[in-house]
Amino acid sequence: MVIYDITDDDLRLRVARFLRSKGLKRIQKSAFIGPLTSSERANLVAGLRRIVRGYDKVNIQVFPLTEASYRRRVVIGVDTVHEDEESIIT
Amino acid sequence: MVIYDITDDDLRLRVARFLRSKGLKRIQKSAFIGPLTSSERANLVAGLRRIVRGYDKVNIQVFPLTEASYRRRVVIGVDTVHEDEESIIT
Repeated sequence: MVIYDITDDDLRLRVARFLRSKGLKRIQKSAFIGPLTSSERANLVAGLRRIVRGYDKVNIQVFPLTEASYRRRVVIGVDTVHEDEESIIT
Repeated sequence: MVIYDITDDDLRLRVARFLRSKGLKRIQKSAFIGPLTSSERANLVAGLRRIVRGYDKVNIQVFPLTEASYRRRVVIGVDTVHEDEESIIT
């Protein structure tokens, strides 16, 4: 799972696109999830570091989740995610 | 770990305060984490459902994390969280 706080609109969009290109799925506006091996996760982290280099006000956290953690998650409320990214960054 | 997408400013603030009152710590603007037993987590979920009742545009996800998942997390960038909640909701 990847969660992020990114102030810059363009950068936030680039990070979201990068995560999607790596096969992750959006579960909230600033949260993506997906099945990655350890080496894929390391590549993902390296790619994220490259993308955000030079920006401040960026915080990204990458959590390796177990299958059990994912299965036992509780979702409250409606799906607030719109795949039209342009609407998310407004 | 609790992550949320909440459109309403007041509700978002109430949820953040509730999570803090349960001993969770903020790790991003919309993410909290803390050590809870299964029954504490069930209480937390019940409390969150109560707080958000009647609101739409709310999505909260609660993940039970293992110690290993937490220890092996990767943090990229700076700490963007300010504990002054008023500044967060602007």
